[in-house]
Amino acid sequence: MSRILIIGAGGVGNVVAKKCAQHPEVFTEIVVASRTRAKCDAIAAEIKQLYNVTVKTAEVDADSVPQLVALINGVKPQLVINVALPYQDLTIMDACLECGVNYLDTANYEPQDSAHFEYSWQWAYQDKFRDKGLMAVLGCGFDPGVTNIFCSWARKHHYDSIQTIDILDCNAGDHGHPFATNFNPEINIREVTQTVRHWRDGRWIETPPILDDNCVHFSFDYPEAGPRESYLLYHEEMESLVRHIDGLKRIRFWMTFGQAYLTHLKVLENVGMTRIDAVDYEGHKIIPLRFLKALLPDPGSLGTNYTGKTVIGCIFDGVKDGRQSRKYIYNVCDHAEAFREVQAQAVSYTTGVPAMIGAMMMLTGEWQGAGVYNVEQLDPDRFMDCLNRYGLPWQIVDFDGQLPD
Amino acid sequence: MSRILIIGAGGVGNVVAKKCAQHPEVFTEIVVASRTRAKCDAIAAEIKQLYNVTVKTAEVDADSVPQLVALINGVKPQLVINVALPYQDLTIMDACLECGVNYLDTANYEPQDSAHFEYSWQWAYQDKFRDKGLMAVLGCGFDPGVTNIFCSWARKHHYDSIQTIDILDCNAGDHGHPFATNFNPEINIREVTQTVRHWRDGRWIETPPILDDNCVHFSFDYPEAGPRESYLLYHEEMESLVRHIDGLKRIRFWMTFGQAYLTHLKVLENVGMTRIDAVDYEGHKIIPLRFLKALLPDPGSLGTNYTGKTVIGCIFDGVKDGRQSRKYIYNVCDHAEAFREVQAQAVSYTTGVPAMIGAMMMLTGEWQGAGVYNVEQLDPDRFMDCLNRYGLPWQIVDFDGQLPD
Repeated sequence: MSRILIIGAGGVGNVVAKKCAQHPEVFTEIVVASRTRAKCDAIAAEIKQLYNVTVKTAEVDADSVPQLVALINGVKPQLVINVALPYQDLTIMDACLECGVNYLDTANYEPQDSAHFEYSWQWAYQDKFRDKGLMAVLGCGFDPGVTNIFCSWARKHHYDSIQTIDILDCNAGDHGHPFATNFNPEINIREVTQTVRHWRDGRWIETPPILDDNCVHFSFDYPEAGPRESYLLYHEEMESLVRHIDGLKRIRFWMTFGQAYLTHLKVLENVGMTRIDAVDYEGHKIIPLRFLKALLPDPGSLGTNYTGKTVIGCIFDGVKDGRQSRKYIYNVCDHAEAFREVQAQAVSYTTGVPAMIGAMMMLTGEWQGAGVYNVEQLDPDRFMDCLNRYGLPWQIVDFDGQLPD
Repeated sequence: MSRILIIGAGGVGNVVAKKCAQHPEVFTEIVVASRTRAKCDAIAAEIKQLYNVTVKTAEVDADSVPQLVALINGVKPQLVINVALPYQDLTIMDACLECGVNYLDTANYEPQDSAHFEYSWQWAYQDKFRDKGLMAVLGCGFDPGVTNIFCSWARKHHYDSIQTIDILDCNAGDHGHPFATNFNPEINIREVTQTVRHWRDGRWIETPPILDDNCVHFSFDYPEAGPRESYLLYHEEMESLVRHIDGLKRIRFWMTFGQAYLTHLKVLENVGMTRIDAVDYEGHKIIPLRFLKALLPDPGSLGTNYTGKTVIGCIFDGVKDGRQSRKYIYNVCDHAEAFREVQAQAVSYTTGVPAMIGAMMMLTGEWQGAGVYNVEQLDPDRFMDCLNRYGLPWQIVDFDGQLPD
């Protein structure tokens, strides 16, 4: 039997728990824990009704290693799936080490007081996990996660060498709110207001952030979604792909944004509401971005009326048997269909399903190892097969369109 | 000798204190009090340096009638000039009644928990002031204030009857910030997000607020500032002018806004930052609009680099000796000139100078009475003369332009 502990009961936690509950042959026991037990209980009640599966729940402060250790030692899971906040990756990894349990997450660690999406903190755990014979799998959502696996799978089957990768992330959905973020607003806004970097000829190139008039963007014609303005952005999977895909000359990440979203974000930045330093207010220390989060719609609530699709994938340019070729691998996910299945919009769905599949790879022994791994270091074949079977089917096509130089 | 107590040490308090200090023949003793004594001390230090006049300072919580009574009984002023927050009008009026002191303010009372700019609360003090033989002068800034006096002066000298009044308030200045308000942001944003009303044929007509796509606006060609998009807005002086200018068929108020200002305001409204109800946040009750105020530039700090002008005035259509005529009375005030004189931008300057002149009218006996008065009920001639002499010169011209019906 395989017992898993899911930490985090937000939009992604909900999807992971439900997708795991759909596979009782692998996940024989599921425990969901978060700071707010009521959120775990609500997920458990829905799972009972949908699949007649009993999920246990617990309360835990994921900032506290002692609390996490007590929880993990009580549950005794084979695997901890971390879908809490990225600030909490290290405390949860520490607790897994102390308890001797494997670990999987979907987003890399970020300190609370500065916006840095970097793997260095988590890669520093390499020796600790290896020495204890434990496996930690990092960034197993969609991007990072599926996009990395698209890369390793393309490299394995379609290329002798890959020269360039363009990752393109399009959300062509409409949630009906004037402004809302599709996942935790605090993380989302930090991510999109940071300095933009891409990799070219052996080094990181900085370009202006997306709110700057001189930011880099172009219109890309997405399958099923049509042309959408796509902005150069830094995204964490590039850091590990540069390390793990040999011979890469260039890797870029593009994300679509609507003009209204950018206008809202620009205004919020102008007035100081995206600040992550504490402001003195009537004797309290208030972090403006956190207070904004309290006002914005809960991303988990957006699914109800969400229409449209997400289209996320990678375009490769490389050589196979001496011939240059360009291929595009992508998934299209429909917000309303995701909601009908697991009561979550597609941004939560596309993150949660790969976490479940990654957990399945670990529990079934398909992925094994001692140490800290990014997903492109592990064999992609069965994972790619599971994407097709478990809700995120993908296409591979020859690409004959235009990309900026 | 005439001792005055100024309550409030923001942008307007600074102007009132300095303009009073320029006239020691009338204002023989000046005391400035506010919640933050350091702000009063800073004004006093500047006045000492500029005019070699000694201003006393005090700390007071203007929400507390007992504190106000203790202060007023200690100072024993002939007049209290209230340039604190509009929420505090009633506590200060109560304290003046208890201490037997005359009262003047620049903005009508508004309850903290709802945006209603109405005179009803203050008009209800009519009998109390009259019975004690005290005078309360309401709304003696620019608008309300000078605009009301333009009306009573026009009625006295240029019209047998006035049929329509259009008040036009243009700020064609540039403070160099992406978003800032020219006076207390809390009051400013409440004012401009409220329902729009104007008076026509004996009743109030509601139209969409300025952030609505269907709001009413037109381009008016302002003297010295040129064409500016001007938006129909509710403004408090209309309430008293409808009552005090006989036979009025229509009165409207227009204010200029730039597209960037409106975009910022719309976004802040969309995300809930203009809310005036308390939000639970980490165990504290936070009013979003107040927190926003803490992040925005202090209006008193805008003057440093402010360029451009304000143009505020009234256009009348009426009959004199059987002949229909249209006249436009207006003032032009330059931000940088105001700053050179009293280290304040023009929006503070145009509010503070009329308060000083009104106080001068009361202390010299030009304005006398027992009860609560709006300024158009008092003789306008010497006040109009003082505007020309003390920094706010006005023009009267025949108007031959176009206004919306």
